[in-house]
Amino acid sequence: MNFPAIIAQKKLGGALSDEQIAAFVKGAADGSVPDYQLAALLMAIRLNDMDARETTTLTLEMARSGDMLHPDVGGVPVDKHSTGGVGDTTTLVLVPLCAACGARIAKMSGRGLGHTGGTVDKMESIGMKTDLAEEDFLRQIREIGCAVTGQSAELAPADKTLYALRDTTSTVDSLPLIASSIMSKKLASGAEGIVLDVKVGSGAIMPTYEGSLELAKAMVEIGTRAGRHVSALLTGMDEPLGSHVGNRLEVKEAIDILRGDSAGPLLTVSLRLGAQLLIASGIAHTPAEGEKLLRAALDDGRGLAKLRQMIAAQGGDASVCDHPEVLAQAPIVTPIFAGRAGYVAHMDTARLGYASQELGAGRKQKTDAIDPRVGFIMHCRVGDHLTENQPLCTVYAANEETLSRAAAMIREAITLADTPVEKEKLLYALVTSEGVEAL
Amino acid sequence: MNFPAIIAQKKLGGALSDEQIAAFVKGAADGSVPDYQLAALLMAIRLNDMDARETTTLTLEMARSGDMLHPDVGGVPVDKHSTGGVGDTTTLVLVPLCAACGARIAKMSGRGLGHTGGTVDKMESIGMKTDLAEEDFLRQIREIGCAVTGQSAELAPADKTLYALRDTTSTVDSLPLIASSIMSKKLASGAEGIVLDVKVGSGAIMPTYEGSLELAKAMVEIGTRAGRHVSALLTGMDEPLGSHVGNRLEVKEAIDILRGDSAGPLLTVSLRLGAQLLIASGIAHTPAEGEKLLRAALDDGRGLAKLRQMIAAQGGDASVCDHPEVLAQAPIVTPIFAGRAGYVAHMDTARLGYASQELGAGRKQKTDAIDPRVGFIMHCRVGDHLTENQPLCTVYAANEETLSRAAAMIREAITLADTPVEKEKLLYALVTSEGVEAL
Repeated sequence: MNFPAIIAQKKLGGALSDEQIAAFVKGAADGSVPDYQLAALLMAIRLNDMDARETTTLTLEMARSGDMLHPDVGGVPVDKHSTGGVGDTTTLVLVPLCAACGARIAKMSGRGLGHTGGTVDKMESIGMKTDLAEEDFLRQIREIGCAVTGQSAELAPADKTLYALRDTTSTVDSLPLIASSIMSKKLASGAEGIVLDVKVGSGAIMPTYEGSLELAKAMVEIGTRAGRHVSALLTGMDEPLGSHVGNRLEVKEAIDILRGDSAGPLLTVSLRLGAQLLIASGIAHTPAEGEKLLRAALDDGRGLAKLRQMIAAQGGDASVCDHPEVLAQAPIVTPIFAGRAGYVAHMDTARLGYASQELGAGRKQKTDAIDPRVGFIMHCRVGDHLTENQPLCTVYAANEETLSRAAAMIREAITLADTPVEKEKLLYALVTSEGVEAL
Repeated sequence: MNFPAIIAQKKLGGALSDEQIAAFVKGAADGSVPDYQLAALLMAIRLNDMDARETTTLTLEMARSGDMLHPDVGGVPVDKHSTGGVGDTTTLVLVPLCAACGARIAKMSGRGLGHTGGTVDKMESIGMKTDLAEEDFLRQIREIGCAVTGQSAELAPADKTLYALRDTTSTVDSLPLIASSIMSKKLASGAEGIVLDVKVGSGAIMPTYEGSLELAKAMVEIGTRAGRHVSALLTGMDEPLGSHVGNRLEVKEAIDILRGDSAGPLLTVSLRLGAQLLIASGIAHTPAEGEKLLRAALDDGRGLAKLRQMIAAQGGDASVCDHPEVLAQAPIVTPIFAGRAGYVAHMDTARLGYASQELGAGRKQKTDAIDPRVGFIMHCRVGDHLTENQPLCTVYAANEETLSRAAAMIREAITLADTPVEKEKLLYALVTSEGVEAL
């Protein structure tokens, strides 16, 4: 297969044949096509797009580029995936709650990327192991109903190569590339039920509602064609979902919620997503029924108990569930003020994510170490009014240098106005194989 | 400088700042930016283009990425460049003729690329050295008026990296990338007069007249802004320019022309280009005067004598000038018939170039060796009528296998029709700093 001819086909706006897509994926998986040719094709795909047939073929080829699992978890294996956000730690809330309701959650998670956080980093920040061997992963699910582990290199190895290339070549924001990356891993992992959280807004991979809706529909279609139960929620990312941003801080917020000490948008979205997981598991039949079951597990403490079990099973320090305040410690803790009064009119959420990266909560380069202590706690949401004496947030920093850079970024990211502003939308739509339902 | 941000800027259709372009060129020249990031940016440039300011900055930065020469050649150093074609060996005709008229031609040439031939390969096919040391190159010009050498790695090193990447990532056909690649090397080499042969048609890098005209105008503008005397001719490449295709065969045709044994389109275009070189050298004032001087040097044998001098000076076998028939020898020499009578209606000239590559006259991979003996001599031009018994061409092949593949490609490349067809246009336009003149 002549690879420059494949690149040229997409460069000129043509559709790639199934054979050409297979050659692309094989070349990425076995290293036989050099990175620079893959990168040129990725950019051509980003700019000239792929149609539905191409995207489905790409996804299936990527899934088949490595092992295809059929995990024995003592029930229906289900998984959830978020397209990535800031202060977006629904996994640590909904996985224990769903497991407490009897679901079997075999969750594969990623690390933080760009401005978005990653569940694996959050779990490691409290000492949890995230490189579970396959048999340990499955045994844990059979025993306690849930396990969360990092991506296995054997699953969709083509995606591993392409994902790393996309991150460094500004080709992340491509619908066919996002959809195939997410769905190939879920199909390969053997998840029978898949719930997708597709973000919308200034901190989302696809900033517009239309783009996010297209992405959600594409992924639901791919998964449905592959015989899986798939649904997608479109949820707001025009401001951080939870108030806590940063690894240990986000774990703290999840624990606070499971302890009943906190609520808000993070809980709302977690319950919506969790209800879909219970439906995919055959445990609930409607979203309302699912949410009711989850609320009960929250209220009677079964959710917190399950998180404690999961942390301990994965080698972490479960005592943080009893003393979550230990998770909010850093050398410097200081409030950031806007310097004026006003209504919070807009947040550049990606910029807030980069501010947390600047503090050390995320990586600028793949080899960077993460500082688990740093981040910030937001004290406002869009629509809130702040006086001059009320802080935008409290920053947890390792040193004055990163503090001052991050503080400037946070101030730039948040726009204040003199007149009242509407709150941001949190729940947009539910996409299933049946169609799109506005929420 | 954050390279993914530079890629993103172009991906989104924005113009790159001068600083961003400088970072791009520096990264290509010193290897500090990985190939895959360069490749992604090249594709983004190919698809989202660059404006005139960006293209000029790119060219100047590439020129300055290595040595900037001010050669002492005992006169005005001039150079000619073709965007590349098939049977396009004007260099070996016009360089001796112009030198015989007193011009100082310091010519840097390239190797064959894709379907197009390269002067360096043709010269090496008769034993000439093409890696002249700078002082030998300049001394030869001072002594005999002309020298032709391969690209020096010290000139525009950024171009060397980008050129190799473009060839393998299908990003050759981009106006700003072509213009900057050509002009950066010419500016760095210190040529005061630059004549460009911009090809139009099925064998050209830019197939349409409009694309070629834009390219010619861009290059003339860049060179003029840099204080050089630049003109460009737009000439036809809807069929091979000369009748001979292949390295020794093309040298033979050039010698045949200088001996007065052959003429045709190759001579016509060589005289037009040569006249522009004499104008740039201050030797002629009009194209007509220039052509008259060149014709005189052709008719009285000074051109042939100069070629003989140049071949000898560069270590080649000058006796081929007296016995050019030795250059038309190969293990297999056989005519190719169309299999039907008809008018030659169209030639896919790039495909003819690939047929010569298939025979071994060009490289499929950079490391391939070239067979100097192989190629073909065309026996028809567009508009000619062929009977069933008249061959399309005579192929010079190394073995039956390459012969049969090349013969099939040649037959596919040439379309015959039952009704008369007009001849292809040979001379389109002249572009100077004054404007565009139709020819």
